[in-house]
Amino acid sequence: MDTLSVNKSHGGTLHVVRHASRETGTDMTFSVFLPPQADGGAKCPVIWYLSGLTCTHANVTEKGEYRAACAELGLIFVAPDTSPRGPDVPDDDAYDFGQGAGFYVDAMQAPYAANYRMGSYIRDELPDIVASAFPIDRERQGIMGHSMGGHGALTLALANPGRYRSVSAFAPIAAPSQVPWGTKALGRYLGPDRAAWRRHDAVALIEDGARLPELLVDQGEADAFLEEQLRPDLLRAACADAGIPLTLRMQPGYDHSYYFISTFMADHLRWHAARLFN
Amino acid sequence: MDTLSVNKSHGGTLHVVRHASRETGTDMTFSVFLPPQADGGAKCPVIWYLSGLTCTHANVTEKGEYRAACAELGLIFVAPDTSPRGPDVPDDDAYDFGQGAGFYVDAMQAPYAANYRMGSYIRDELPDIVASAFPIDRERQGIMGHSMGGHGALTLALANPGRYRSVSAFAPIAAPSQVPWGTKALGRYLGPDRAAWRRHDAVALIEDGARLPELLVDQGEADAFLEEQLRPDLLRAACADAGIPLTLRMQPGYDHSYYFISTFMADHLRWHAARLFN
Repeated sequence: MDTLSVNKSHGGTLHVVRHASRETGTDMTFSVFLPPQADGGAKCPVIWYLSGLTCTHANVTEKGEYRAACAELGLIFVAPDTSPRGPDVPDDDAYDFGQGAGFYVDAMQAPYAANYRMGSYIRDELPDIVASAFPIDRERQGIMGHSMGGHGALTLALANPGRYRSVSAFAPIAAPSQVPWGTKALGRYLGPDRAAWRRHDAVALIEDGARLPELLVDQGEADAFLEEQLRPDLLRAACADAGIPLTLRMQPGYDHSYYFISTFMADHLRWHAARLFN
Repeated sequence: MDTLSVNKSHGGTLHVVRHASRETGTDMTFSVFLPPQADGGAKCPVIWYLSGLTCTHANVTEKGEYRAACAELGLIFVAPDTSPRGPDVPDDDAYDFGQGAGFYVDAMQAPYAANYRMGSYIRDELPDIVASAFPIDRERQGIMGHSMGGHGALTLALANPGRYRSVSAFAPIAAPSQVPWGTKALGRYLGPDRAAWRRHDAVALIEDGARLPELLVDQGEADAFLEEQLRPDLLRAACADAGIPLTLRMQPGYDHSYYFISTFMADHLRWHAARLFN
């Protein structure tokens, strides 16, 4: 594990770390923000933040405006990459498949299956790696994400009940099996059998009986991807049918960018803190 | 004037604008954040934020974490570029001279004099351009900046008494005539006559009688450039001799990065608001 940088910020410290990943077979880079409450190694709740298409750990780290709230609330914030990367990792010229677009699944199709194991990476490997060096309290984990990362946060939480005590998303891809981004990615990573896709689709998971105690979602009404790719309407219907308390806030004028994410980041972190410190 | 992007953020709107500049003879790009208090064209105080070496308007726009505080306080925030740019603009391979390093002076030496007119651009042209499209209250202007931009903020305020009602800086180059970054830039832009440099050196301006009503400076103690390039000790001495009330806060553990700037940004904006709404 190599520390690439350490910067003091908002009273805490931001670490950027690279490690060799067992799951992806590549080096992976992530950032960890430790609030001042973690000084001296005191355990703090951890938020896993999953980013969207094209992003690395750096986008939310630089533009997410999360550190002030994490320092106030006492939350550790971890931002992983969105896929394996490197010259030996199968890629695609499109922005929405391959490197930068791992979709938080374990691929089952060649040539992707060897490296594209972001599901197991986020769920199993990364928590061990982070816990080996930073004082995360694994009894108090929350998960959130944006767009493809919102999909990742919802599906990981739905598929691993009890693991994450708080879940939220910004503009998540709520029903990937039913939209172009998702059908392309799930088809190529998982293969043509759509039954296998349902374990990686928040709406399908809910339809198939998976549950969350509650859920916060913010969605910009001026988001260019809303109707074709994100489909919060399907999430709303699925949660209503299943009795999952969903707080879905449609935000007038907001788009899909970090200017939207950063606006509501502190709200989400307070939502998580209220449940993680409960 | 071309609008390159408009994004809603923190209840206000962020505009990125490109215009043909009379002073630099090039296109120049800047960002303007309008807080919700400016809705409907209501005039609001304006903060000019001058960035440091290598930066464009984008760095602080993405990483500065200023929008939440500006939206709360009712401040318009303008972030210009740090130099003219383009294939026809004289440049230098070094990061600390030429494009990205205008030093907020009007160059007097060939081949820089034609384009490198960042002093007049920030002081005269940009306020007219911004006022033509956005509701800035020119009776209530504040100025701030980082590193080279802290130098720019201090020297523009000292050289134009009464123009800026509030002034602050993060890790400013306080005495450019006495440090490597400054002697290189001032020597090549202004020529060998050091008398001409004194009008572009905050410590020298104060020694020569220029005054500010008061000044806020934050400086990281772990800033790698502190002793060789920034010299807050010289600023402290000059302000003490001149009776300028300087609030110089040495911040343990903080470096020269945006992780430092963003930590204290809201504090600075509150400082400015207290004076601009006074």
